[in-house]
Amino acid sequence: MKVNYECASCMLRQSREAIEHATENHEKRMDVTLKVLNFMNENFRKGTNSNKLGTDLHHMIMTETNNNDPYKKLREEGNEIAQRLIPMVNELIEKDESLENYVKIAVAGNVIDFGALDENTDMESLLKRQITRKPAINETKSLDMDLKKAKNILFLTDNGGEIVFDKLLIKKIKEDYDVNITVALKENPILNDALIPDAEKLNIDKYAHIISTGASSVGVVKDYISKELKEYMDSVDLIISKGMGNYEGLTEMHIETPVFFLLTTKCNVISREIGVPLGSPVIVKKNLS
Amino acid sequence: MKVNYECASCMLRQSREAIEHATENHEKRMDVTLKVLNFMNENFRKGTNSNKLGTDLHHMIMTETNNNDPYKKLREEGNEIAQRLIPMVNELIEKDESLENYVKIAVAGNVIDFGALDENTDMESLLKRQITRKPAINETKSLDMDLKKAKNILFLTDNGGEIVFDKLLIKKIKEDYDVNITVALKENPILNDALIPDAEKLNIDKYAHIISTGASSVGVVKDYISKELKEYMDSVDLIISKGMGNYEGLTEMHIETPVFFLLTTKCNVISREIGVPLGSPVIVKKNLS
Repeated sequence: MKVNYECASCMLRQSREAIEHATENHEKRMDVTLKVLNFMNENFRKGTNSNKLGTDLHHMIMTETNNNDPYKKLREEGNEIAQRLIPMVNELIEKDESLENYVKIAVAGNVIDFGALDENTDMESLLKRQITRKPAINETKSLDMDLKKAKNILFLTDNGGEIVFDKLLIKKIKEDYDVNITVALKENPILNDALIPDAEKLNIDKYAHIISTGASSVGVVKDYISKELKEYMDSVDLIISKGMGNYEGLTEMHIETPVFFLLTTKCNVISREIGVPLGSPVIVKKNLS
Repeated sequence: MKVNYECASCMLRQSREAIEHATENHEKRMDVTLKVLNFMNENFRKGTNSNKLGTDLHHMIMTETNNNDPYKKLREEGNEIAQRLIPMVNELIEKDESLENYVKIAVAGNVIDFGALDENTDMESLLKRQITRKPAINETKSLDMDLKKAKNILFLTDNGGEIVFDKLLIKKIKEDYDVNITVALKENPILNDALIPDAEKLNIDKYAHIISTGASSVGVVKDYISKELKEYMDSVDLIISKGMGNYEGLTEMHIETPVFFLLTTKCNVISREIGVPLGSPVIVKKNLS
């Protein structure tokens, strides 16, 4: 995805929050803010790849503040929020064990996002509301049909927290379909994105092969991901992609493999691009070739 | 007041909203956003006067979009919100006709602010809550004493909407104290700030002499206001200053006249500087000499 005019103020808001997490020192916060303004003036252009820009911006903030994981606490908080809701989720699943229900829960989990949403957002309340919402686009039937034909699939995770619900979906797919699942997580910290230890802690390796994307990028960025991930992308039968960052990145690539995007739209730009209202749960298949 | 690191993201948010009000054209919005980033990179520095910067930024947006009053609709909306609450306000005043109650209502009115607050804020609900809140600092007694000694006072207004409540306070002061009141409003549109026609529509000229600040600046900016306003500032016995913009501007000046700041703190920077929690109603006297 290319940046829209609205991305500038959003990136400044996200930068301010990242800087606040990265350092307590007010002088330093001002110094890095000046660098952010300089970076934005130099790099924010019509046609710029949004998540590549975001990735470079966050890396600059991490370097300047000498903090390689500003969102550590929020990533853990995301996992705790999700764990607290597991009893509620289990009740929902007991009532309805369909693939669709698992998918809907995983999509609702995508609201645990300390990058896209203002951090004053009450993620737990939002999640509770979101979990029972009807998706604005729901192509789960198509996902079910494609999973029946697939041998190998790739699952691209997004945030810490939602990975707790992703695990339920991954387990469901493994148990109901005859597929090998590869789950890719970020190589190093970026925002509150899930990392390999988060997946291991949840025993996702019981159901899937776990790999790193080879990068600590916002979503996947063509120039930054590992050759291994790129090979998986091209060789699997379908990709399940969680979240906005991966949407932004994959829509900048040419991939032969069909992609199912599972996300909640948390900004106007992506909502407009997909053609749904802001805050919509979405399960949409796209051909990116 | 000098800019803090937090002002950068706030100014980008405010610029985005101003651009959205100023033009429907998405290409233009992107062009002006690039100019905002350039402007911020060139002008945002440690020690920069916050409301002078904000003023120059908004004028640049108005020039670039060829729209000299992007907030017209919101200014009118502010007046409508305030008018809708007049029956409630009248009930509050019937129960308690003290100066303190009038002051508290005028301070609560300061939440009708489409510049400082995110425009998704429900101003009417916020105002209803705010109107019964205890001020974090309340120097109304000192205001009462100073008004008893004063012959001439200057009242600096802030937003459209809150001026409806300011009028009640101005009338109260005129009726209870032996003072000449001069009310200063912005010369031309800036944000949703009140203008002379707003004051005339409310018949404020029945109780006060109305002048313009000589500028369309965010609050008062030393370099931009008229000689006439500066003379009033220096010659009156006390100044009543509404809102954050005037606070930002006056604290950059040296004035012999004591100033009573009546405002609700709507950003972290000003809350910290005054030493109160975010969102606090405040009636505070300051010596700026």
